[in-house]
Amino acid sequence: MPLDFSDTIGRYISITWRHMSARLAKKLGPYGIGAGQFPILFILFIEDGLSQQAIAQKMATDKAAVTRAISALERRGYVRRLPDHRDKRAYNVRLTAKAKNLRPELEGAVMEILEQMQAGLDPTQRAELKKLLKQTAMNLCGQ
Amino acid sequence: MPLDFSDTIGRYISITWRHMSARLAKKLGPYGIGAGQFPILFILFIEDGLSQQAIAQKMATDKAAVTRAISALERRGYVRRLPDHRDKRAYNVRLTAKAKNLRPELEGAVMEILEQMQAGLDPTQRAELKKLLKQTAMNLCGQ
Repeated sequence: MPLDFSDTIGRYISITWRHMSARLAKKLGPYGIGAGQFPILFILFIEDGLSQQAIAQKMATDKAAVTRAISALERRGYVRRLPDHRDKRAYNVRLTAKAKNLRPELEGAVMEILEQMQAGLDPTQRAELKKLLKQTAMNLCGQ
Repeated sequence: MPLDFSDTIGRYISITWRHMSARLAKKLGPYGIGAGQFPILFILFIEDGLSQQAIAQKMATDKAAVTRAISALERRGYVRRLPDHRDKRAYNVRLTAKAKNLRPELEGAVMEILEQMQAGLDPTQRAELKKLLKQTAMNLCGQ
């Protein structure tokens, strides 16, 4: 049977990701925060002062891309890199007051898009979708 | 309650999309087919000869990006653009023999990644995930 690509999980993930990213880019554009940068702020909102390596691990992305994104955030005044006092080659990343003040607005923007995305899904379906997507993410990360 | 971004649907979609795209790019690289181009081939495998506009609609992406992707596929000898005989400004896109011959390999590559992604999910979970993701895609497309 031929693969009907128009009706696969892969296609729906691509469409969702593309539109989600475009909406987010539009909302964060005025703050000078790129789509690859905002996840770093959210990771630091939960745990400020993490190392670059720990951030890359949490994002499941490569360290070079994370280093570039952190540099961009630093240029805009949202984070500062401080040398780790235990490991001379490592840097810890700290939020500035500017980033902390922006937190409610950034969270509001992200939550609004997550809400638009899940419109019409009841709490059980939302929990199920999260569980299943977590599995697909882990499946592809780990191998 | 602060938003724990590390455990949202948005994050799992981003991770899944990024790793899925990277694997696909690696598999299709040897054929000179980019990640934004292969969906067009799959759309044409199901319905050859569609107009550029119809392809853009099925991909839920903008026409300019689709036009660029079709040009890239044309340069590689995978499709040809033929003027529509009813609408002089429109073009229909047709697969070449080269593309048709490649179909089993391309389908195999995509199915392999879809399988890796859904490892450990039973048929009911796979169907549920597809249904829920279709909803999120449609939610974001439509607004």
